[in-house]
Amino acid sequence: MVQNTVQLKVNWGDTDMAGIIYYPNYFKWFDIGSLTLVNELGLSVINLMQEDKIGLPLLDAGCRFRKALLYNDEIRVVSRVTEVNEKTFRVEHEVYRNDEMTGNGHELRGWVQFDEFGNLKAVPIPDEVRKLLTEDKVLST
Amino acid sequence: MVQNTVQLKVNWGDTDMAGIIYYPNYFKWFDIGSLTLVNELGLSVINLMQEDKIGLPLLDAGCRFRKALLYNDEIRVVSRVTEVNEKTFRVEHEVYRNDEMTGNGHELRGWVQFDEFGNLKAVPIPDEVRKLLTEDKVLST
Amino acid sequence: MVQNTVQLKVNWGDTDMAGIIYYPNYFKWFDIGSLTLVNELGLSVINLMQEDKIGLPLLDAGCRFRKALLYNDEIRVVSRVTEVNEKTFRVEHEVYRNDEMTGNGHELRGWVQFDEFGNLKAVPIPDEVRKLLTEDKVLST
Amino acid sequence: MVQNTVQLKVNWGDTDMAGIIYYPNYFKWFDIGSLTLVNELGLSVINLMQEDKIGLPLLDAGCRFRKALLYNDEIRVVSRVTEVNEKTFRVEHEVYRNDEMTGNGHELRGWVQFDEFGNLKAVPIPDEVRKLLTEDKVLST
Repeated sequence: MVQNTVQLKVNWGDTDMAGIIYYPNYFKWFDIGSLTLVNELGLSVINLMQEDKIGLPLLDAGCRFRKALLYNDEIRVVSRVTEVNEKTFRVEHEVYRNDEMTGNGHELRGWVQFDEFGNLKAVPIPDEVRKLLTEDKVLST
Repeated sequence: MVQNTVQLKVNWGDTDMAGIIYYPNYFKWFDIGSLTLVNELGLSVINLMQEDKIGLPLLDAGCRFRKALLYNDEIRVVSRVTEVNEKTFRVEHEVYRNDEMTGNGHELRGWVQFDEFGNLKAVPIPDEVRKLLTEDKVLST
Repeated sequence: MVQNTVQLKVNWGDTDMAGIIYYPNYFKWFDIGSLTLVNELGLSVINLMQEDKIGLPLLDAGCRFRKALLYNDEIRVVSRVTEVNEKTFRVEHEVYRNDEMTGNGHELRGWVQFDEFGNLKAVPIPDEVRKLLTEDKVLST
Repeated sequence: MVQNTVQLKVNWGDTDMAGIIYYPNYFKWFDIGSLTLVNELGLSVINLMQEDKIGLPLLDAGCRFRKALLYNDEIRVVSRVTEVNEKTFRVEHEVYRNDEMTGNGHELRGWVQFDEFGNLKAVPIPDEVRKLLTEDKVLST
């Protein structure tokens, strides 16, 4: 189980007129969490896209919100690969403010080839990638 | 079951370098769908917040992504209230491009009182609101 | 002078904890205004990008904010091409809530070729495009 | 002249289908730069808003874009208070990737009282704030 942690801050623009975090931002953080994890594994998200025409689009995502985050809160997004299937993988995310989990959720992502017409087709996750994603390793950013 | 439909367009800024929609935008659309539905029912989201100190924060949200949306796609967000509990309600959302459902998901929202210190406390959904949310009615925006 | 108008609404997520619009949204609207204008002229932004490798990146942008926009305000973004130079063009934008101008500004955009390595190079605006951009025409979306 | 520097990263969701930064993000960074500077001076943006009903809304903003930023670029936003007027102040921002300035611009912000009805009224910047904003000091975040 590979795990990575990203440190972020709640910006003014991340709040809404209720004075608390606007919830779609959680999914921005999940996206940052997953892509940082992939980069930290040595699999450059950029190279995957530009050289191999491989993208990691979402199939499913969800979040349970537990505590209202506020402007200027410092948060940690802890992301773990919890499943590696033939053509998809699952990342679970937990968001913490100090020791308090304020929300947690998941992403199910495909391993997808983009053709020259912009069409997407799921393809098998290569063995060397599978190996990296299933390692037992704590990364840190 | 109250239902409402909002027409939207995929903007350039809603895409990312993969050339398709950046997925957290789906949750922005769900938020627009739910709040528009509440407004269309005659329950002003603004008055709830400013006069009654009532907000509708998220407890849970999820989405299944089926087709990649592209820049300039015209979409319809169809939102239905599918559950009204004591202090929470559930809205299910479907996003369509023409007749094709490109994604669908849900939000579970609380009926919450904000106190003067910014604390949130779930309170019972008033009967008149419950009545409105559980009506069998198709709104259109 | 080509002119185009786009109708938009201020969403909940466009506000911040001050209860008014979060200002970078004005530039999202300017971007929507310019690209819609280009599309409405019959110059598909998508085809320019995908077939001709032509993009319209920003060189300069600015906005003067006059009135605070609020959640649910209905706005009109009026965009006019006011200058067409050899390799750049300028669009001026006015944002209205009813008859009140709430803000106005500009964008200076380049006519830019993307090469296969992702490098950008300004190139002359083709004559047929120049003709379209300098026409005296009121489009409406 | 107070100066502050914030370190940020270009996220996947900050790009658009042209493969480069979506330009309104520059203004998000300017906003982060200014508010961080105010916080670092010991003037809590939150307390100003919640206790004194003072906000810092934008009157004017602009940016010149020099180089295209890409996904995963590490940037520094250097923000300087360059003018403190009776009821407004100006912050100039420079964005760097390593030693290269990729864009620079300004914000003119008001010192504004919010009344209980949500109306905004510019009021004189208090002397103790003026003193802090005009100090010659390099902060670092």
